[in-house]
Amino acid sequence: MAELQKPYLLFLGDVPDALAAKTATGVVDWRRDWCVGQVRLEGCQADTGLQDMNIAQGVENGAKTMVIGAVNAGGVLPDHWVTSIVEAIHAGLDIASGLHARLQDVPAIAQAAAAKGATLHNVRHVEQDLATGKGTKRSGMRVLAVGTDCSVGKKYTALALEQGMSAKGMKASFRATGQTGVLISGRGLAIDSVVADFISGAAEWISPANDADHWDVIEGQGSLFHPSFAGVSLGLLHGSQPDAFIVCHEPTRTTMRGVTTPLPSIQEVIEATIAMGKLTNPTIRCTGLAVNTAALDGAAAKALLSELSDAHGLPATDPVRFGVESLIAPLQDMTPTP
Amino acid sequence: MAELQKPYLLFLGDVPDALAAKTATGVVDWRRDWCVGQVRLEGCQADTGLQDMNIAQGVENGAKTMVIGAVNAGGVLPDHWVTSIVEAIHAGLDIASGLHARLQDVPAIAQAAAAKGATLHNVRHVEQDLATGKGTKRSGMRVLAVGTDCSVGKKYTALALEQGMSAKGMKASFRATGQTGVLISGRGLAIDSVVADFISGAAEWISPANDADHWDVIEGQGSLFHPSFAGVSLGLLHGSQPDAFIVCHEPTRTTMRGVTTPLPSIQEVIEATIAMGKLTNPTIRCTGLAVNTAALDGAAAKALLSELSDAHGLPATDPVRFGVESLIAPLQDMTPTP
Repeated sequence: MAELQKPYLLFLGDVPDALAAKTATGVVDWRRDWCVGQVRLEGCQADTGLQDMNIAQGVENGAKTMVIGAVNAGGVLPDHWVTSIVEAIHAGLDIASGLHARLQDVPAIAQAAAAKGATLHNVRHVEQDLATGKGTKRSGMRVLAVGTDCSVGKKYTALALEQGMSAKGMKASFRATGQTGVLISGRGLAIDSVVADFISGAAEWISPANDADHWDVIEGQGSLFHPSFAGVSLGLLHGSQPDAFIVCHEPTRTTMRGVTTPLPSIQEVIEATIAMGKLTNPTIRCTGLAVNTAALDGAAAKALLSELSDAHGLPATDPVRFGVESLIAPLQDMTPTP
Repeated sequence: MAELQKPYLLFLGDVPDALAAKTATGVVDWRRDWCVGQVRLEGCQADTGLQDMNIAQGVENGAKTMVIGAVNAGGVLPDHWVTSIVEAIHAGLDIASGLHARLQDVPAIAQAAAAKGATLHNVRHVEQDLATGKGTKRSGMRVLAVGTDCSVGKKYTALALEQGMSAKGMKASFRATGQTGVLISGRGLAIDSVVADFISGAAEWISPANDADHWDVIEGQGSLFHPSFAGVSLGLLHGSQPDAFIVCHEPTRTTMRGVTTPLPSIQEVIEATIAMGKLTNPTIRCTGLAVNTAALDGAAAKALLSELSDAHGLPATDPVRFGVESLIAPLQDMTPTP
């Protein structure tokens, strides 16, 4: 996918609740500097806290791309959203969408984009040519967020790591593998949308060769132990060839998301990730645990993290509550002197 | 994919050598009864041994589907092949193609198919809706051919197993996961062509619930140790939930096909397949080894098979040279009494 042009104008439509605009919220949480404002239609129940403006004002404020940062019910793009998108195109903006529907499948949008030369980014769809994975070593350092399950904080952990590493002067780039991550980073692709033959090739493309002391902080997907998505997780592991990985975990979950399979233990995830990951990086190792303790009170959360840290001999933190300082330290130690 | 209508008329075009018609050869090797004849254009250098006929004669002989059993150079469908395909459609046939190009992307073919109501099967492309994998146990028995690498005889082993098991009166169905296999079985799909999110879901679709004493003999793809394709292999393993697996191996290969990664040992493949496969079938076990000994003389082949059998405590055979009798015995023992 071509890189998204910044800054963004975030389109929230008229969604009925905040959850429907979580893509927009994620972009604002991590890339507020890239956002000039939000466009909300009458009745919108979501609010990112950005300044409200119309499309013309967004353009006046320098916006280059309007990001559809909300999902509509039913998967069909409502007519009044189409009207706004066409207006944005005529005002000179590119459009980036995390919707299931492809923008160009709506004739009015396709015609407007053709007339204005606007680029339409469908971040749920992979529209570029990919090569199959090669498995050869690339320069630079890589850390991958893996999970005991889906939706356990892998994206958040990776973004927090990038932010913390950059703040310390380390060279670090968040590498997106999911749609919201792509909008947050302006680059990457939704790896679960590629044709199966190209999973590891896509991961190689996402994380190209770089400076020896540069870290790619790669957003994980799924889990090696999820019966629906483990193939994606394995291809991503092989293509990422990580030097280090962080295991992300949600301690109250008992079965994998959407299925009846029991959750694996953290130790099983560590062992399987090393066993399979050493194919493309023989020195792969686990450097920490990121635990979502939202369901626990402060004392219980600290006790659990301390217990897990002792059991595994690894730093353990809840990135949201306690930051990622302890996860960065081992990565600093591993960074080669340039 | 809808099931292909039989019998077939095999179209070989004017390919310059036998290798370009290996799909047709595979169909004839395993499903001669389904084939009424072959159509060869002037200059064709391949021959399946079927009776030569033109399209009208194929229809007179009862053909329902013309199978494009040859690949053309360069990926573009030549005009004179298009002429034959359109002729076949007008004569009342469906078309099944293993070509990279989609049949309906050629306007003349799309128009003819629309006019006649013919079905166009593009077996390299997955055009149906799939669900994500569920990981729940299905009734019936399943055996999967896995590999130390790509192209080590997994399809041949699975087809030979189905044939040998059926000859013994066992209930057995070959389940295709690659394009040639789909044409041979008339059903299935090319699992490396599905969107990554649906790999295990596709494998579940390929091998649905069945009688308790029925065996699905599932064609494997890739290898858990191939850095390009392991994600496909893992999703296929999880979705297949095999009770038994056969490790297929080519003993003279030193690096994985197309990459520089060293070949894994048979033992590594057995251990990784059990470690990962037990997620969806806790009783998964290896029941035999299928070794391609084509590069060895008869004595050396027998010595190697005997050595591997002793080392692993498993039957070891070359299915092409010595049959699959020894691989069937453990499957017979595992079959529940109905």
